[in-house]
Amino acid sequence: MTTNPISATVPFDQDGIHHGFLRLPYSRNDSAWGSVMIPITVIANGKGPTALLTGGNHGDEYEGPVALQELAASLRPEQITGRVIILPMMNQPAFSAGLRCSPIDGGNMNRSFPGRPDGTVTQKICHYIASELVPLADIVLDFHSGGKTLDFLPFAAAHILDDKRQEDDCMAAMQAFNAPYSVRMLEIDNVGMFDTEVETQGKVFVTTELGGAGTSTARSVAIAKKGIRNLLIHAKIMAGNLDISDTIQLDMPDESCFVFAEKAGLVEYLVDLGDTVESGQPIARVWASDRTGTQPETLIAKRDGILTARHVPGLIKIGDFVGLVAVPL
Amino acid sequence: MTTNPISATVPFDQDGIHHGFLRLPYSRNDSAWGSVMIPITVIANGKGPTALLTGGNHGDEYEGPVALQELAASLRPEQITGRVIILPMMNQPAFSAGLRCSPIDGGNMNRSFPGRPDGTVTQKICHYIASELVPLADIVLDFHSGGKTLDFLPFAAAHILDDKRQEDDCMAAMQAFNAPYSVRMLEIDNVGMFDTEVETQGKVFVTTELGGAGTSTARSVAIAKKGIRNLLIHAKIMAGNLDISDTIQLDMPDESCFVFAEKAGLVEYLVDLGDTVESGQPIARVWASDRTGTQPETLIAKRDGILTARHVPGLIKIGDFVGLVAVPL
Amino acid sequence: MTTNPISATVPFDQDGIHHGFLRLPYSRNDSAWGSVMIPITVIANGKGPTALLTGGNHGDEYEGPVALQELAASLRPEQITGRVIILPMMNQPAFSAGLRCSPIDGGNMNRSFPGRPDGTVTQKICHYIASELVPLADIVLDFHSGGKTLDFLPFAAAHILDDKRQEDDCMAAMQAFNAPYSVRMLEIDNVGMFDTEVETQGKVFVTTELGGAGTSTARSVAIAKKGIRNLLIHAKIMAGNLDISDTIQLDMPDESCFVFAEKAGLVEYLVDLGDTVESGQPIARVWASDRTGTQPETLIAKRDGILTARHVPGLIKIGDFVGLVAVPL
Amino acid sequence: MTTNPISATVPFDQDGIHHGFLRLPYSRNDSAWGSVMIPITVIANGKGPTALLTGGNHGDEYEGPVALQELAASLRPEQITGRVIILPMMNQPAFSAGLRCSPIDGGNMNRSFPGRPDGTVTQKICHYIASELVPLADIVLDFHSGGKTLDFLPFAAAHILDDKRQEDDCMAAMQAFNAPYSVRMLEIDNVGMFDTEVETQGKVFVTTELGGAGTSTARSVAIAKKGIRNLLIHAKIMAGNLDISDTIQLDMPDESCFVFAEKAGLVEYLVDLGDTVESGQPIARVWASDRTGTQPETLIAKRDGILTARHVPGLIKIGDFVGLVAVPL
Amino acid sequence: MTTNPISATVPFDQDGIHHGFLRLPYSRNDSAWGSVMIPITVIANGKGPTALLTGGNHGDEYEGPVALQELAASLRPEQITGRVIILPMMNQPAFSAGLRCSPIDGGNMNRSFPGRPDGTVTQKICHYIASELVPLADIVLDFHSGGKTLDFLPFAAAHILDDKRQEDDCMAAMQAFNAPYSVRMLEIDNVGMFDTEVETQGKVFVTTELGGAGTSTARSVAIAKKGIRNLLIHAKIMAGNLDISDTIQLDMPDESCFVFAEKAGLVEYLVDLGDTVESGQPIARVWASDRTGTQPETLIAKRDGILTARHVPGLIKIGDFVGLVAVPL
Amino acid sequence: MTTNPISATVPFDQDGIHHGFLRLPYSRNDSAWGSVMIPITVIANGKGPTALLTGGNHGDEYEGPVALQELAASLRPEQITGRVIILPMMNQPAFSAGLRCSPIDGGNMNRSFPGRPDGTVTQKICHYIASELVPLADIVLDFHSGGKTLDFLPFAAAHILDDKRQEDDCMAAMQAFNAPYSVRMLEIDNVGMFDTEVETQGKVFVTTELGGAGTSTARSVAIAKKGIRNLLIHAKIMAGNLDISDTIQLDMPDESCFVFAEKAGLVEYLVDLGDTVESGQPIARVWASDRTGTQPETLIAKRDGILTARHVPGLIKIGDFVGLVAVPL
Repeated sequence: MTTNPISATVPFDQDGIHHGFLRLPYSRNDSAWGSVMIPITVIANGKGPTALLTGGNHGDEYEGPVALQELAASLRPEQITGRVIILPMMNQPAFSAGLRCSPIDGGNMNRSFPGRPDGTVTQKICHYIASELVPLADIVLDFHSGGKTLDFLPFAAAHILDDKRQEDDCMAAMQAFNAPYSVRMLEIDNVGMFDTEVETQGKVFVTTELGGAGTSTARSVAIAKKGIRNLLIHAKIMAGNLDISDTIQLDMPDESCFVFAEKAGLVEYLVDLGDTVESGQPIARVWASDRTGTQPETLIAKRDGILTARHVPGLIKIGDFVGLVAVPL
Repeated sequence: MTTNPISATVPFDQDGIHHGFLRLPYSRNDSAWGSVMIPITVIANGKGPTALLTGGNHGDEYEGPVALQELAASLRPEQITGRVIILPMMNQPAFSAGLRCSPIDGGNMNRSFPGRPDGTVTQKICHYIASELVPLADIVLDFHSGGKTLDFLPFAAAHILDDKRQEDDCMAAMQAFNAPYSVRMLEIDNVGMFDTEVETQGKVFVTTELGGAGTSTARSVAIAKKGIRNLLIHAKIMAGNLDISDTIQLDMPDESCFVFAEKAGLVEYLVDLGDTVESGQPIARVWASDRTGTQPETLIAKRDGILTARHVPGLIKIGDFVGLVAVPL
Repeated sequence: MTTNPISATVPFDQDGIHHGFLRLPYSRNDSAWGSVMIPITVIANGKGPTALLTGGNHGDEYEGPVALQELAASLRPEQITGRVIILPMMNQPAFSAGLRCSPIDGGNMNRSFPGRPDGTVTQKICHYIASELVPLADIVLDFHSGGKTLDFLPFAAAHILDDKRQEDDCMAAMQAFNAPYSVRMLEIDNVGMFDTEVETQGKVFVTTELGGAGTSTARSVAIAKKGIRNLLIHAKIMAGNLDISDTIQLDMPDESCFVFAEKAGLVEYLVDLGDTVESGQPIARVWASDRTGTQPETLIAKRDGILTARHVPGLIKIGDFVGLVAVPL
Repeated sequence: MTTNPISATVPFDQDGIHHGFLRLPYSRNDSAWGSVMIPITVIANGKGPTALLTGGNHGDEYEGPVALQELAASLRPEQITGRVIILPMMNQPAFSAGLRCSPIDGGNMNRSFPGRPDGTVTQKICHYIASELVPLADIVLDFHSGGKTLDFLPFAAAHILDDKRQEDDCMAAMQAFNAPYSVRMLEIDNVGMFDTEVETQGKVFVTTELGGAGTSTARSVAIAKKGIRNLLIHAKIMAGNLDISDTIQLDMPDESCFVFAEKAGLVEYLVDLGDTVESGQPIARVWASDRTGTQPETLIAKRDGILTARHVPGLIKIGDFVGLVAVPL
Repeated sequence: MTTNPISATVPFDQDGIHHGFLRLPYSRNDSAWGSVMIPITVIANGKGPTALLTGGNHGDEYEGPVALQELAASLRPEQITGRVIILPMMNQPAFSAGLRCSPIDGGNMNRSFPGRPDGTVTQKICHYIASELVPLADIVLDFHSGGKTLDFLPFAAAHILDDKRQEDDCMAAMQAFNAPYSVRMLEIDNVGMFDTEVETQGKVFVTTELGGAGTSTARSVAIAKKGIRNLLIHAKIMAGNLDISDTIQLDMPDESCFVFAEKAGLVEYLVDLGDTVESGQPIARVWASDRTGTQPETLIAKRDGILTARHVPGLIKIGDFVGLVAVPL
Repeated sequence: MTTNPISATVPFDQDGIHHGFLRLPYSRNDSAWGSVMIPITVIANGKGPTALLTGGNHGDEYEGPVALQELAASLRPEQITGRVIILPMMNQPAFSAGLRCSPIDGGNMNRSFPGRPDGTVTQKICHYIASELVPLADIVLDFHSGGKTLDFLPFAAAHILDDKRQEDDCMAAMQAFNAPYSVRMLEIDNVGMFDTEVETQGKVFVTTELGGAGTSTARSVAIAKKGIRNLLIHAKIMAGNLDISDTIQLDMPDESCFVFAEKAGLVEYLVDLGDTVESGQPIARVWASDRTGTQPETLIAKRDGILTARHVPGLIKIGDFVGLVAVPL
């Protein structure tokens, strides 16, 4: 069995605050003895639960990295009981390139778990996280947003699981996070996801989608910051009271929630995120991008609900996702 | 004197509706006898003024192209008196690549006027528009948005000009467009702009910034569509009543409106577009993108006003624009 | 066992004509929720045999795609008994890029069978075709040509197989296709080929090489169209009489048919496709590409026969194929 | 006035045969003190006229380079009276990359004359040839073919000129070349062409199109070799008798000879090079490249004649040339 | 079990000298029937031991290729007893591109052994060498240098092995090579190395690091040439006396010999190769590369010794190797 | 006349130390309102001469940038009388990419003077330096080394000028710099050089070549640091005594000092930098890079002297510089 070549420059078992790196040797044309350096902060204080907080699973999603950078720079050991492990930019090669997937190997990290110690760079990082960090954790919060090509209503989510006790714990943690929208998800194709790896290890897991378009706003980052604090209080790592506002519960029951394009062109949205749509209602049109005077293709919602996610770039390709219509509960 | 090699496949002097192309022969490795084909629609009906409506000056800005594609596909000659020339994707090579500048020659079209008939592809297109299309027009509307890297509050704008009568006409047209915000601009460095070329030819000129992030929304496109209709009524090409709502008048008096970054990193906005800021207020922070545990650089507004434009990508480079604080009048 | 993520938007078990796609979800930097969309047409009418007709296995070969696009657009259910499944551009990512191999993963589709449901994009497509489409078929016709870098005399081919009954059926189908040349092939290294996968499933299989140079001609496409019609008649899916002309039977007995270059340079052919050559005859010379005044390297046929295939680009690299001398029977 | 930095390693004024280079210093990232090296051969013997023979004006056209490489390696001084200057690969950077245009600066050499001594690499080469080599010549033969994206019937051509005596000399030289087809051309847009530069200097000029598709054949190279010998005899540099076969005289009177595509897709030719077509006859169809079941766009000949040139790649882009219908005289 | 598709154009079992290639068929976009051609020379004379001499394992290291090219061009069969197999550019695709790793598949050859017959191009080459060439050898000498991004003091090295008899043989061969420095190495992570493969097969193995910076010098190549001759004499393949000078014995006992950068920037070395350093001594500083006026990060030796290797490029990235402090014995 | 768009964030007329940037607005696809930021430090104290110290004219040469970064971070105003302007990375886009020329426009800065205010990015920087900074200076020191593709013996140099008084001043400054070698240069092709611009403005100018291979060493940087201090003392900006060692005076009288390659391949140097060579002596050989068993091309010195510069990469291209033989005085 190959050993994972990643080593941490920080200790996981010492009280106090330690900033450092997960270092992965990576030999390449522009650095024969180079390394991938994944920033990590470990804050520990006495006995208590461990929270693993991750961002940058996809490298072009920013609410998590911003909120976690601030947390790593401001949280003091005496504010917690237990341990907080912070990885603001988990897929560091993708993050530093501003891309969803790793520029080294094309790896989509959230389809590469549990990874391999002798695999690609992305697979090695996944394997280290799955085999070394997740086992240390009681609760895991993984931040996502839409990235450069998708935009979402801000929501936290937990999965429907076979183990109903674990599912209840996850749903409770999601409600504690208290994003403006909360989603109960049945993941049909969950192979390779970080979510699946964490849940398989029996941990409490919460994920989010907090915006998109390859950016973040003061408002969307505020949701992330509040959610982190709420979650750490919920997990009994921080003291204090939860900060709870109204949240809209959403369901995504099946494939009919999703609309895809069958023609490439210039996309025009007829409704915006958060708007209510009805089954059969046009939600977007695709105009020719190379000529004038032709009629557009109209794209239709297949069920009643709220437009919860959409495509961002002004041009759309054949097969691209157009819109997600989720069902308020 | 070289002749511009572009030819139009549509007539400019016939009543009715004609869809076609400006064809520019472009010999290259992947097509020895290829062409750049810029879509154009000409709609004419009797004697009357001519409006030239343009989008895609920058290829990653979408409100103009969407609204103009719909106009070209729906406006009937009997609805107008005079002529409407529609170029939804003026810098077609940039538009089809989804880029601000031309992938052929790197040309930023709005810094390439009046162009050259024997220049680069971008310069040839500019020269044709400046020498063949602008002279046909009485009023010109050029759509802009922020593109992939900027986001704007939606505004129409007209320039402060030496000829005060022309300036008044431009300001009146801008007010008729009636975007949510209206900006009176003093362009300091206007060399190479389409705006300057049109104004130099003595025409009425209106421009816009209607959003950004490389996308458009139902709301932002609705502003463009209303503005076009209002402008055509204002120009007496269409009949009907102007559709007028409240608009906020903004001023951008000098360089102190602009904030730039002097460090690269992960940007966190502390205020959002439309928020009021005061001189000395932090508007953004830049976190390290390669390590945790360091303090961010804080970026400060240099005057009171409203955050009117911002950087979009979650990572920011040294020298990048951060924020524009405009002054409400 | 992982499930193949590809789904078809057309039914395989309904009479009539259905045009649609094989949709493969493909998450990537420029479309987080994007898809590869492989065009497919299914035409069915009552009980009868099924023909699977494929083109675009290599993305720069055009006789198959052209003839199959016309078939898909013109064949009516009432013309057939049974079913015709048409995939004109099987390796769609390669086809749309005009490349032999997939631009996504570099995959040479004809060395990627039987594929993997959890593999690369090319492997997933292969796996779907091998596990879902081939089992539906009684006879499979896969179109090839030389692509951008090879040119062939037009031939249909069938393989020498262990199962002589199956071999006879394949040879009969090849003769029914009735290309100008017909080749009986012993495939020595057949690992990963579509041919092998189809034959292993016990089906009748015919392949072709109909030209090359990354293009097609009216004459070469006519061979493909005639061949399709003959094959469907031969398979008793269409009624009518075979359209049969003379065909020259060729054999490629061993490695001595092939000539390769050991020097890079500017290639000069001394004989053309279809010319007769003798063992020891120079068939090409390679001149220096960076200087004048040097003597060329001469390349020699190693057996008597007909020049059946050659290299296309004017520059040749070390190790490139130069010529194939096949033996008329 | 800047001096052209190119120097020749061969003498132009010494009898005998000299192989060498035109050396152009070219500083760049991968060679701070590097050079572009353009192969040249000069063969001289006593007093007599000078022929300048050039290939590789476009870097992906091969009949000229092959025939001229053989000439440079085989012609002996005693076979001539006067001087032969041979440049088989005039745009050497394009030639070595197998591209029409220079990979260094994108320069299309045949639109870059008369060049500049302080310009791009392509412009410097043009300036040297125009100012140093053309003045030495009495007759200039420049070889062209279709390159990777065009294919031509094999023809030699001369231009209609204002100076009818010069025109007669050029036409006589073209007839002496004796390609299978001979074309009398009125060049409408001749700015930047090598042809124009040579003709402006009062020289006899012949050009060719001998095939295409980025390759050459034994047959097409034989036309080039015969044409060179005939031309040198015609110019009284070599002794011997002209080798003359039938040639078909073609005319290309105006723009109606050319057909261009207005839709991108998969192109199907309905006639081949050399076929007779009538005005109104479909010559090609363009099928969708991303779906089945749609009707193709049909492209129509605008006059009677012979299909003399066509597009090569199986995929065609909007604005690409489709076919040239020339008129036999 | 798949067969390795590589074939040799030279015999391994005939006396005399044979120059040729290992030919690996490699189908790709720019050559459908292309090949990778790896140069090889086999020199044999009667019965005796076999030496396998390899360079170009990493494609940007030059002492080995230069010395082995000269050996292949000058060694005569009558000078030896036994056999010498010379592969000066083992990873030919990397070598011809001047890169450490293969441009085809990114493969680092020295982490790709023992390879796979059905793997990537790099894996296929490794598999052929491991399964066909190493078994023929009694002694293997593999040349390395620092490549473009590292520079080394010139040393030969042998590994500490479990089989002490084999280790003694390797150490003796290393001492016979007699580089200016000699290193006894404990390879901790030896998975995939050529070294490991050869040692596992029980052969005598010597490796080197003879310089770096992507170049070689007269002095560094002289070390390689002397070492080859000495090694062939030591192995009793050549007759003659060893040419022995002083060599400094070095040890690299553990990870504390290595210094890595944790900040990117402009690197300043404070000591040079061969200089003595003490534990705690600064060996380099990293300055900001985008601003002036900031303090550099200082990098410290963690033990006493000699600076034996360093980073070459003037800019350094986070995680890059900075210096190796080896311990003289 | 266009105004140069560059502005400085530091004052040039205030005592004290100021670190900042030259900011050049640069609109592009990845930052619509981005900037090029060139670091600058100005240190001033009372009345006295001004020295302009520049590095990074070519972006892959490191002695200047390292020594100037240290100077900018350590020199205090009270140490000087007058003013020191420091630009360690003049062509910042090239420097940050580690390339000789600008990755934005390919510009070789040392062939782009005096630049243009409306030109490319490189031309704008040149114009600003030539029109705003050089006029402020009495003495200018511009650091060069060989970059990634050349290596030099360390020398300072001054030019032979028409104004002998200015020449004497430059020679005196060069001698004060006191590099190990000192070169009196006749620049034949000096168009576009920074040197020429400075000299034309009548200033004292010194340049250097201090090493190469895209790196620097403790020894080579020490030469730069000593030279700066000596020069500032010589210019009476700093007090103190010159630190003078032996220097070897070299001359490069004509083109016969330079040797270029006429064949591409694997280069073997037969002498090293600093070695004495005689006219007719082989200095390098070029081996085939794609085969074994062929004889190398030998490259010959054309005069007696010292090998003063050489090519670095192990592979050499046709037309590349091989060696410079300078003449000791």
